[in-house]
Amino acid sequence: MAVQKEIWQQIGEGFVQEYYRQFDTTDRTGLGNLYSPTACLTWEGSIFLGREAIAGKLASLPFKVIQHRITEQDCQPTPDSCIFIMVIGQLKVDQDPIMGFHQVFLLKHQDGAWSCTNDVFRLAIHNIPA
Amino acid sequence: MAVQKEIWQQIGEGFVQEYYRQFDTTDRTGLGNLYSPTACLTWEGSIFLGREAIAGKLASLPFKVIQHRITEQDCQPTPDSCIFIMVIGQLKVDQDPIMGFHQVFLLKHQDGAWSCTNDVFRLAIHNIPA
Repeated sequence: MAVQKEIWQQIGEGFVQEYYRQFDTTDRTGLGNLYSPTACLTWEGSIFLGREAIAGKLASLPFKVIQHRITEQDCQPTPDSCIFIMVIGQLKVDQDPIMGFHQVFLLKHQDGAWSCTNDVFRLAIHNIPA
Repeated sequence: MAVQKEIWQQIGEGFVQEYYRQFDTTDRTGLGNLYSPTACLTWEGSIFLGREAIAGKLASLPFKVIQHRITEQDCQPTPDSCIFIMVIGQLKVDQDPIMGFHQVFLLKHQDGAWSCTNDVFRLAIHNIPA
């Protein structure tokens, strides 16, 4: 008998699936709707505060085609009823070689829906042993 | 003039420094004190619930000597006054080759002190593009 996944894991994995699905379309402007109005994104060390700033950053990334592939995703519930998610994966941008990436999300239930309040993204290129 | 770091960044970076300092000593049993009593650790996909289970797991890792080197650490404050941290770095265990790792922490102020409520760790070996 299959064991049913915990609800926080279902919600976390559903968010991750929808996030990268929207990211890999030709129109990334919809990504902003996955963030709370006051969310915080740290993208390669630069901070973007608020849904509009985050949506603008993600929509303006300088490539035409991107494809994400998730290697691992780990979800946990937090004491404040949030969902904590770490994703590691690989991405391919235009004709560039495949690169590893790491991204973490914190999801919170606000105003009747789950949205991302905190997001940190880093490419793995910083972390290749010499 | 140097810009003073935000308090959440000072606390986050202080935690990270202390965490890996204790991890790299010969006695890792003190690491449990950095976690809240009901903390959750996902270590390479396996979940450990509570400070005692986490301290036991970390103390029993099968190596004699470990050294961590942090490549990047990104901190953010959360809506529930927690601190969200992503660390990427490299580690060397005994005589093994250097490996990349990723670890995320959520810190919460409870009972007069900051402690870790959520922790996810993964080695980067899962994520090397072919």
